[in-house]
Amino acid sequence: MNFFSSEFRLGILGGGQLGKMLLTDTRKFDIQTFVLDPSEEAPARFGCNAFYKGSLLDYDTVYQFGKMVHLLTIEIENVNLDALDKLEEEGLPIFPSPKTLRLIQNKGKQKDFYVKNNIPTSKHLRFVGLDDLREALAEDELDFPFVWKSATGGYDGNGVKICQSALDLVKLPDVECVIEDLIPFKNELAVIVSRSANGEVATYPVVEMEFHPEANQVEYVICPARIDDAVAQKVQEVALKVSEAFNHVGLLAVEMFQTMNDEILVNEVAPRPHNSGHYSIEASYTSQFENHIRAILGLPLGNTNSKVAGIMVNLVGEEGYTGQVYYENIDKIMAIDGVTPHIYGKRETRPFRKMGHVTIVNPDMNEARKVAEEVKNSIRVISILKNEII
Amino acid sequence: MNFFSSEFRLGILGGGQLGKMLLTDTRKFDIQTFVLDPSEEAPARFGCNAFYKGSLLDYDTVYQFGKMVHLLTIEIENVNLDALDKLEEEGLPIFPSPKTLRLIQNKGKQKDFYVKNNIPTSKHLRFVGLDDLREALAEDELDFPFVWKSATGGYDGNGVKICQSALDLVKLPDVECVIEDLIPFKNELAVIVSRSANGEVATYPVVEMEFHPEANQVEYVICPARIDDAVAQKVQEVALKVSEAFNHVGLLAVEMFQTMNDEILVNEVAPRPHNSGHYSIEASYTSQFENHIRAILGLPLGNTNSKVAGIMVNLVGEEGYTGQVYYENIDKIMAIDGVTPHIYGKRETRPFRKMGHVTIVNPDMNEARKVAEEVKNSIRVISILKNEII
Repeated sequence: MNFFSSEFRLGILGGGQLGKMLLTDTRKFDIQTFVLDPSEEAPARFGCNAFYKGSLLDYDTVYQFGKMVHLLTIEIENVNLDALDKLEEEGLPIFPSPKTLRLIQNKGKQKDFYVKNNIPTSKHLRFVGLDDLREALAEDELDFPFVWKSATGGYDGNGVKICQSALDLVKLPDVECVIEDLIPFKNELAVIVSRSANGEVATYPVVEMEFHPEANQVEYVICPARIDDAVAQKVQEVALKVSEAFNHVGLLAVEMFQTMNDEILVNEVAPRPHNSGHYSIEASYTSQFENHIRAILGLPLGNTNSKVAGIMVNLVGEEGYTGQVYYENIDKIMAIDGVTPHIYGKRETRPFRKMGHVTIVNPDMNEARKVAEEVKNSIRVISILKNEII
Repeated sequence: MNFFSSEFRLGILGGGQLGKMLLTDTRKFDIQTFVLDPSEEAPARFGCNAFYKGSLLDYDTVYQFGKMVHLLTIEIENVNLDALDKLEEEGLPIFPSPKTLRLIQNKGKQKDFYVKNNIPTSKHLRFVGLDDLREALAEDELDFPFVWKSATGGYDGNGVKICQSALDLVKLPDVECVIEDLIPFKNELAVIVSRSANGEVATYPVVEMEFHPEANQVEYVICPARIDDAVAQKVQEVALKVSEAFNHVGLLAVEMFQTMNDEILVNEVAPRPHNSGHYSIEASYTSQFENHIRAILGLPLGNTNSKVAGIMVNLVGEEGYTGQVYYENIDKIMAIDGVTPHIYGKRETRPFRKMGHVTIVNPDMNEARKVAEEVKNSIRVISILKNEII
């Protein structure tokens, strides 16, 4: 199959920052790309060969979009799966497959899948709603504390709540949910696995999410993770086991906990490029985005090793600011060696909205970590006017 | 000035591969970009915010395009300078300046400039045409052998001829020309200098062009050049002197000869991203394209050091093939660690047309050099049908 400067058309469902960063590599290879997104302000509206505005959840829209391309991939899981089933049935290659997406879209099914495949994960119970959950509590089938997760629709910590007592249940939405054991952990780790249609597999190094000591928010994604080699090897093995179980094609980002006694428990996965792999653009021989494209097209996978240490800092909208975005001190951080900002192209900032990220690379990890802190303390994502109405 | 996700518009004259690669970084920073190119098939027609089809040599077209943007740069020198003069007079920032472009567009003026500024260069004479040149030969003002260069319009070795005797003059066009001493050299070297509006300067390492032993064609651009440190330092100093003399803003690629007795002679310059800097996308902390953007916008310059050794191989159309391009064995070279193809997006191949390039990176230069040879010997840029008529 000839993909380069050819008639071949790759379709991408979703035009957010992940789609935009994928396009950097489709442009590099001159692979024709069509993008579907509901927003005409989508970051990936430029850089594709054709952009279509439409709902990712509408059967007809997704189906018709699929009929225009030779291969379909996603940059967001929340898409109409019935349309994908139909397209796959009609012979369109879709990576990740609708089957994988169906498993992953529901966190309850995802946890059941780990149990069924002997993949280490925290204990869980599934409930259809709050009444069901309260009944189980009344009958002593579970105890506080625990982690409540909405079965569908959650992202970036939304749809997750640590419940210490019945009081914490009051504000929860009455939706299908998963209850998980609250497990203290030393580290939150992740591995991105690239797997091609012919079964070739390549894993990126283990990365570590470093949390703010008070705010309990991820501040830095650090590659390689500052953990023992033995632990790193175990983490890689678990990630590979997950990858094999899903039999996915493309990327699979596997998020894991390292418990206090160095057990590795799988938290959740994403079958696509992932925030925890953004560092790879500057630090790796082959970025996660390039390897996603290589994998879904059945091209040989690229080297996943790092050239240098890499740290990523997310740029999220500051609280108290809404409106036309302004990146305060961006020139200041750009004056530091090895600092690269990525601006996603969202005109309007809102509190906690993901607006971009900054990668810090350095031959020396300690130096990179210092610079990352300087970056974090310097740049602010604000609006030109405070709480501007636009 | 706020460039990121703002109303600011950067204009680029020319939409070839250099423009396309610049757009990778304007997208990364979400800087709005307008592109003007005469071809609707221009590689940079995707990835910009707006593409305009029109002549780069037409006064009105260039002037009107300039009126739509806040800052203008080029990816090709051959543009209408009168329009740029007028735009600059009206207050538009243009980098490189029309003055610099006027000097560089004419190789005779460029050589005079080096002499005037005490920049080492081979001896030269200027002639308005062939009659003028023949007269000088008849009057013994110069001797064979020498290098004939067309004063304007030459590129990639076009418009250059080594003349050993009067027979070599027969096929030359009757145009304004420069005659230069034919100097035997050990190495052809280049340095890219990035210089910002506020005078900040950063130089990339010296690169070496390795020639095919028989064909006398550049085969590899190698960074860093395999030369003595003392020579490298001298080369850097000469490049900086040239940069200061031009007082340019943006990139200046300075091509030089290292003579048999280690003299450094300036050959010519290009005031823009350059083929000799393509390795920087994968090998450097900051690519030449990103540093061009940083320089013209007055942002701090990025680190020009390399993470790893880098070698670039040009992908040019093979002789005997014209038509819809096919990259034979591209999957084979992509299976090698550290190999990244860049496909410019030209649908039709022609003999010697620049269709793309391949970067090879490796911590070990000797290993990179071996891989580069393997790449060079594997990939072929051909057409699906031999000498297809399209």
